[in-house]
Amino acid sequence: MSDITIAIDVMGGDLGPLVTLPAALRAINKSASLKLILCGDQSSISKFLQDKQQLDHPRISIEPTTDVVSMDEKPSVALRNKKNSSMRRALDLVQAGQADACVSAGNTGALFATAHFVLKTLPGVERPALISSLPTHDKNKHVFMLDLGANVFCDSNVLYQFGVMGSVMAEQVDAIERPRVALLNMGEEDIKGSDHIKMAATHLAENPEVNYIGFIEGNDIFTNKADVIVCDGFVGNVALKTCEGVARLVYKRMKEVLSRHFFARIFGRILYPSLKKLFKPLNPDQYNGASLIGLRGIVIKSHGNAGISAFTNAIFEAAKEVERQVPEKITKKLEQGLSGTHLS
Amino acid sequence: MSDITIAIDVMGGDLGPLVTLPAALRAINKSASLKLILCGDQSSISKFLQDKQQLDHPRISIEPTTDVVSMDEKPSVALRNKKNSSMRRALDLVQAGQADACVSAGNTGALFATAHFVLKTLPGVERPALISSLPTHDKNKHVFMLDLGANVFCDSNVLYQFGVMGSVMAEQVDAIERPRVALLNMGEEDIKGSDHIKMAATHLAENPEVNYIGFIEGNDIFTNKADVIVCDGFVGNVALKTCEGVARLVYKRMKEVLSRHFFARIFGRILYPSLKKLFKPLNPDQYNGASLIGLRGIVIKSHGNAGISAFTNAIFEAAKEVERQVPEKITKKLEQGLSGTHLS
Repeated sequence: MSDITIAIDVMGGDLGPLVTLPAALRAINKSASLKLILCGDQSSISKFLQDKQQLDHPRISIEPTTDVVSMDEKPSVALRNKKNSSMRRALDLVQAGQADACVSAGNTGALFATAHFVLKTLPGVERPALISSLPTHDKNKHVFMLDLGANVFCDSNVLYQFGVMGSVMAEQVDAIERPRVALLNMGEEDIKGSDHIKMAATHLAENPEVNYIGFIEGNDIFTNKADVIVCDGFVGNVALKTCEGVARLVYKRMKEVLSRHFFARIFGRILYPSLKKLFKPLNPDQYNGASLIGLRGIVIKSHGNAGISAFTNAIFEAAKEVERQVPEKITKKLEQGLSGTHLS
Repeated sequence: MSDITIAIDVMGGDLGPLVTLPAALRAINKSASLKLILCGDQSSISKFLQDKQQLDHPRISIEPTTDVVSMDEKPSVALRNKKNSSMRRALDLVQAGQADACVSAGNTGALFATAHFVLKTLPGVERPALISSLPTHDKNKHVFMLDLGANVFCDSNVLYQFGVMGSVMAEQVDAIERPRVALLNMGEEDIKGSDHIKMAATHLAENPEVNYIGFIEGNDIFTNKADVIVCDGFVGNVALKTCEGVARLVYKRMKEVLSRHFFARIFGRILYPSLKKLFKPLNPDQYNGASLIGLRGIVIKSHGNAGISAFTNAIFEAAKEVERQVPEKITKKLEQGLSGTHLS
C-alpha cells in the first residue's frame, strides 16, 4: 500500500501519552508504509522518543500543541476555547490534507463536535455517526452498529444515510459483498416502531445499492442475522452500554456460581483467565476503534481507557479506512442510491 | 388478607391451557384467600378440573369463551374482532368489578390495546406502561424498569408519570422507602439527552413525593444505583431484548471456553445446570410477570413461553398488587405531586 499519514491525538484518553506514545511506536514498527504525526506536548513526546532512541525516526514527526481537552469538558467549550489542543490540531491536519486520518482516545463529545465543525459532512450526509463492530455467535463474523451515541435523535433521512454508510463500512472494511442492512426496532413486523423508522425502511428498500433486510430486535443483534444494524444514537448508546452492564453482571454471578462448586474452585485458576477474555469483545472499543463516519475525513475514536494494544489497533483501523477510501465510497453510494430512486 | 379474585386468560401464551391451568391449580392450592375465574374454552377447562378432581372447587369458577387471540394477531384486529376471547373476557371482568386483576400470557400488543380500551387510564395518567424487575449485582435487590415496550415514544409528561408509577411499584411491591428513581439517558451529565428527557428530569425533581436521583446510563441498569429506571418503550424494549441477546451470546461463548479445558469438560455436567439457571433472571418475565400499570385495574403480562412456575408467580404478583392497592396509590401520588408543584 502507498504511504498513509495518521495524526495522533497524543494527549487524549485517560492515560494520554502513557498509552498513545508506546502504541504509536508499536504501530510504526509494524508497518513500513505508515507515517505518524504526534500532536501534543513537545517535551513529553521528545523525551519519550529519545528514551526509545527514536527521536529521528524518518516516519514520525511532532506537532507541538499546548492545550488539552479534558475528559469531562463540555463539547461546546472545547470547540470554542481549545483551538491549540492536541485533538483540534490532529483534526486540522486532516482538514488541511496533511494527514489522511486522525486517531483520538479523548472526550467523545468534544471529538465529535470538533470533527464535525472542522471536517464537515460528506455531500448527501446530514449527520456523522459513531460506528463500531460487535461480536456475533459466529466467531469469525461481527456486526457493524450505528449510531452509537453521536446523535440523540435521527429522522428518517438520517437513518437512511446511516444505512448506506454502514453498508459501505461492511463492504470495504470487512470485504462483505452486499452486506445485510437492518433497522433496529421493537418488533420485526412492518407495523412496529415510529413513523421515521418505517419511512427509513421504505427509503432503504428502494435503494438497489443497499441490501436492506428489514427490522431486527435487540435479541438478534448478536445472532449474525445482519451485517449492519442501524438505530439512532440514543438507542445505540443505551444498547451498547446495556451490553456492558449485562456482561459484568453475568461475570459476577458466574464467579459466584463457580465458587460454590468444589471442583470449579480448584480449577478456577485455569478457567478465570479464559472467562475474563470472553467478556472483552463485548466492549467493542476495547479491541478496536469506533469510527466517526459521514465526515470529509477519517476519524477513529479509541476508548478513553484503551490500553496500548487497543490504541495500536485503532491506528491500524484508521489506516484500513484510508486505504479502502471509505468516505469517497460513501459519497458514491449515496449518489447511486439517489439516481436509483429517480429511475424507479 | 381478604379474598382476592383473579381472572385468568386460560387460552393465552404459547402453550395456553397446558400451562395456565396447572399454574392456576397450583396457585389456588397455595393460597386460601385466592379466588380464580378461568376464562377460556369450557370443555378443556372442565376436563382438566375433572381429571384433577377439582371440578367443584369452591374458589374456582369458569367463564366460557369461544375466541382466542393468537400470538401473532394484530392488536387492532384483536380489539375489534375478538370480543368473546378469553383475553377480552378476563379484562371485562376486571372492568366490571367482578375480578380484582387479570393475568395473561397472550399477545402483548393485543393485551395492551385491549386493556387500555377496556379499563382506561387512571386520572392523571396519559399512557399505561409495561414494567418489570431486573436483577442487580446485589442478589437481594432488583430494579424496576419501565416502559418496556408499551409505547413507542413518550413525551416529558408521560416520562414523569412513569417515574411516579414506578416509584409506587417499588414502594408497594418491594416495600422500599423512598425508592431511588432515575431516568435512562446516554450520559449522566445534565446537558445530555433529548429535550423531553431533560424536562421530565425537572418535573421529577420538583415532586417532593419522588426521590429522583438523576440520569443513569445503560451500564448502570444492574448496579443497584437505582430502584426504578424510566425510559420510553422503544428504548426499554431494545435494552431488555439486548440483555437477552448478550446473555445468550455469553452463554454460548462460555460453553466454548469451558469445552476447551479438559477439567471443565469433565465437570461440565456439574456446572452447566447452575450456569444455565444464572441466565434465567435476565429474562425477567421468566421468573415473574410484567405489569401493565397506569390503568384502572391490575393487569399482569406473563411471558408467552412462561412455564407453570412462572405463570404461577405471575398470579401471585397480581395478588400482591391487588393487596397493596397499587392503582389507588399511583393516583394519590400523582395528586400529591401536583399539589407539591402548585405549592412550590
